Parts: sequence; C-alpha cells; structure tokens
Amino acid sequence: VVLGIGDDAAVTRLAAGHDLVTAADALVAGVHFPRNMPARAVGHRCLAVNLSDLAAMAAEPLWATLILALPRARGDWLGEFSRGLFALADAFGTALVGGDTVRGPLTVSVTIHGRVRAGRFVTRSGARPGDAVYVTGHPGDAVAGRLLLRERRASRGGAPLRRRFLYPLPRVREGLALAGVASSMIDVSDGLHADAGKLLAASDCGAELDVAALPLSTSLIGYAGLAGARECALTGGDDYELLFTVPAGREARLRRLTGRWSCPVTRLGMISARPGLRWVLEEHPFSFRDRTFRHFG
Amino acid sequence: VVLGIGDDAAVTRLAAGHDLVTAADALVAGVHFPRNMPARAVGHRCLAVNLSDLAAMAAEPLWATLILALPRARGDWLGEFSRGLFALADAFGTALVGGDTVRGPLTVSVTIHGRVRAGRFVTRSGARPGDAVYVTGHPGDAVAGRLLLRERRASRGGAPLRRRFLYPLPRVREGLALAGVASSMIDVSDGLHADAGKLLAASDCGAELDVAALPLSTSLIGYAGLAGARECALTGGDDYELLFTVPAGREARLRRLTGRWSCPVTRLGMISARPGLRWVLEEHPFSFRDRTFRHFG
Repeated sequence: VVLGIGDDAAVTRLAAGHDLVTAADALVAGVHFPRNMPARAVGHRCLAVNLSDLAAMAAEPLWATLILALPRARGDWLGEFSRGLFALADAFGTALVGGDTVRGPLTVSVTIHGRVRAGRFVTRSGARPGDAVYVTGHPGDAVAGRLLLRERRASRGGAPLRRRFLYPLPRVREGLALAGVASSMIDVSDGLHADAGKLLAASDCGAELDVAALPLSTSLIGYAGLAGARECALTGGDDYELLFTVPAGREARLRRLTGRWSCPVTRLGMISARPGLRWVLEEHPFSFRDRTFRHFG
Repeated sequence: VVLGIGDDAAVTRLAAGHDLVTAADALVAGVHFPRNMPARAVGHRCLAVNLSDLAAMAAEPLWATLILALPRARGDWLGEFSRGLFALADAFGTALVGGDTVRGPLTVSVTIHGRVRAGRFVTRSGARPGDAVYVTGHPGDAVAGRLLLRERRASRGGAPLRRRFLYPLPRVREGLALAGVASSMIDVSDGLHADAGKLLAASDCGAELDVAALPLSTSLIGYAGLAGARECALTGGDDYELLFTVPAGREARLRRLTGRWSCPVTRLGMISARPGLRWVLEEHPFSFRDRTFRHFG
C-alpha cells in the first residue's frame, strides 16, 4: 500500500511477476443476511465472502475497498461492524485501502484484490474426466445455524452451527495451497449442488458424487437428522467452503498437503465425460428436495 | 485483463513499473441522484464519478467492477443503464471485469482500477505557498441542470446545463496530462468551496481565490443571474471538474499543455501559508450562502 484512505483514490504496488485478482460481492440486508444479524457478524461476513472468492482462485488477499450504505449513522453499530471486519482483515493480512460511506438501505459492498503468481490462478473451468472431486469443511452447518437463529431455538449442540453461520471462516490458506494441485475450484456459497453444477458447466463435463461421503457434522445430524442433514449440505448454502477437482496424478500431493490442514477435506467422487451432476447413494440415484433456503426476509 | 467476468474473481496484469490506483464510490437513488433519473444517465454517472477520482490522481483507467442493487429485474432499465455505462467505459478504454447484481434498493457501487507510473500519482496534500490554483471547465453548470430538471422548466438555453448534470464528462485526459505538472489535485464533487477546503486541509495551507475569475458559463448566468451563478459555482457540486495547484516554475508548461485541451482551464488565485480559504471580490472578502443543494429526495 503506497497511499491509503483519505485521498481521491488509493495507490498500491504489486510485486513483479504477479497477476492481480479482483472480486466484488455485495450483501443487502434482508436479501443476503437477516436484518437482525449482529453488526459484528455483518462486518465479518462482507469480507469473508470476498476472501472466499479469492481463495477459490488460489489467490493471496492484499487490499479491499468497502462501500457501506447505512440508513443513519449509528456509532455503536459502526463500532461493532468495524470490529468484525478488522478482526478478519488482520487475520488474513488484508488492508482496507479505501471506500465510501453513504446514506441508504443497509448494503455492504466489498471489492477485494489479491495476487497470484502470473498464470497460476485456478478457474472453474479446468476439471477433466477422471479428476477426483473434493470439498473442505462441513457443508450444511451454516444453513442449520441460520435456521436455528431464526427459530430462536436454544438447542443443545447448536452453538457451533450458529457460529458457522455468523462467522464463516474463508479457506484462504487452503485455496492458496491448492495452486498447482487443483485443476478447477469454486467456493460453495449457494449450496454444494448448485455450485458443483456451475463448476461442471464451466468445465463442460459431468460428475458422479457419493451422498454417503458427505462430511456431515455430528451437530448437523443432531439438529436435522440424517436425511435433513443431507438436504442442508446439498442445498443450504452460505458455507464458504472450497469445492475443487484434482487429477489422479496429483492426489498423493494433495494428501501430503491436507495432512497439515485444520479443516477436513473429503473426496466426494469423480468427474466424468457424461454431462450432468449425479448424486448416488449405495449405487442408486439419489433425489432430494431443494428447499430453497435462500430467503432472509 | 487475463480473465474477465464469469469465475469467482477477475484476473488482471499490470505492466512493470506502475502503481495501481483504486477508487470506490457508491450512488444511492434518492441520496446521490434523483430517483427518476434516466437509467442511461445512472449508468454513465456511476462510472463517471469513479473515473473522476482516478483523473484527480493523474491515473490512467484500466478496469472496473460493478455491484448493482436493483429492487426488481427490469430488462428495459438494465438495457439503458448498460448503454450509458458502456458508452463511457469504451470512451475511456475501461474494461468491466466483474461484479455482482443483487436485489435491493437501487444502489450502484463501482470500484475502479487504474495505473500510474510508479510514484507519479498526484495527491491532495502537495500544495505549497506560492502555487497557483486552477480549475477545469465551468463549475456550477451541473447543479443548475439538476435544479432545472427538478423544476421541469423548459428554459431557453437550459439544455447544456441539463446535459452537464446528466452526463458529466470526467477530465481523465486532463488529469493524466497533469502528472509532473500539478503539485496537488482533487476532483470537484461537493462544490468548489468545499473541495478546495479539503485540498487546503490536506496540504496544511490556505488560499486567496478571486470570485471575479470564476469561469461562469453564459448558460449558467442566463439561468441564475450573476450572483446566483457564483453561488452555484462555489457550492453546487456534481461538477466532476479538476481543481489543482501548479508551482510558479511550471506554469509555462501548463499553458503549453492546456492550449490543446477542449475544456477551459482557469486560474483562480494563489496558495498562501496563512490557513483558511478566502474568496475575494475586488479586494474585498466575499461572503455567500451555502444553499446546500445536496438533497435529492
């Protein structure tokens, strides 16, 4: 960062031999998060979703700009919002270099910039038949946490689920480590099924994935039962996990990498030339409801 | 642009020896522009205000990301919005590399990236006593255009004023040319008086500026009279002109540059060591009302 907040624009310098990676994601209250979400969680979330986009490109985060629309200036809200934002920014070495605060309905727009060694970024479109499909973490926990918060239910064992919804941890280090290993990658924000579909469409191939392999947390099964947990994992969304593919020849390298990670990594199945995404349970096609959890009204 | 819209993030590459310049500005309907503003003008404006920020740093625009919050998908509105946005983007060689469209109250957030040769950016803080103060274009026209639109008055000669409000042309080429010439620079978005005050505060000095020198357009004087035109120029805002300072030794270079420009450049006065901004008319202090035009309800 050569020149930070305070002038007409920020000035930054990128080391030679790197590409700049830019992502932009906005969160609107009542659309992308509940209106009553704690300010600290909103601050965390607006950066987390953008860090997750960079992670899915195998990029290292550097700087972010923030545009915050607020109905009215509220010092206490802003203080908590900043606390959530800067805690995560500090954790991942991301500098806030500029932005704008405007009056308007609560909307948080972040543009984030990262770097990757020239040409080493990982796209959605590189999956090839025979590649294995992996996912990080425990998809489904976040949506269960969201439902718990809405129900205001003080369930036993619900705290980890609520935390996974309010404070998702983007897989930045994991994404970076996957440069040169993953053939394709996407972050899971709309649900495993929907986002796997996008990766397959971009890569122009299909996949067979095993429902029994889904890494369901015990908290999730405790909350939703096995069938409900599977639905949450497949269609819930807000996970901010990484879904990626690895060519057969690199799976041993992946295992060496992931041995050091703090989050689980699970092999779900294989990429095939036959188009379409097929979920399979004990060799039978698996069908599930899409409960379209995507509403925060 | 190495990888454009469609993946988790965009990838771009910057030529060696350059700094990256980033600006972020959001426009909220009813706050930063009238709710009934034509969609094409909204598309133009969201990029123009950001291009103006880059211009004020003497940076060359490269890429932008857009986050658009819309109450509901409306193809006709989006078509006109895109038309306004891309016409300006094309005019200044700016690529739209990514973004997000979300449901929400009409808000347009643009983050723009440009480049400048390493260290050659121009800040607000470089003005020194003895520097001359200049402004481009005809400040005040834009606010008069806005008032005309609100009054729905079909005044004679009002078309240029309305156009200056709806389709401001950021001074990108002029800003670029001022690298190495201007000692400080800011874009005029909140009004000449307010923005000159910001530049002086950042530079820790003062100025005496001549009200008689204000480059008032004949359209503006026709609309508001001489006294009203001066108020519009000093406090109106939405001009997106450049206000800059030039050391005495570089004024001849400036004159050679501006001889080729299509917009007027006017010398308003001098920077002084004595703090404060003093407007002077025929050697007397000039006082004016700040009518605070900043309301779009």
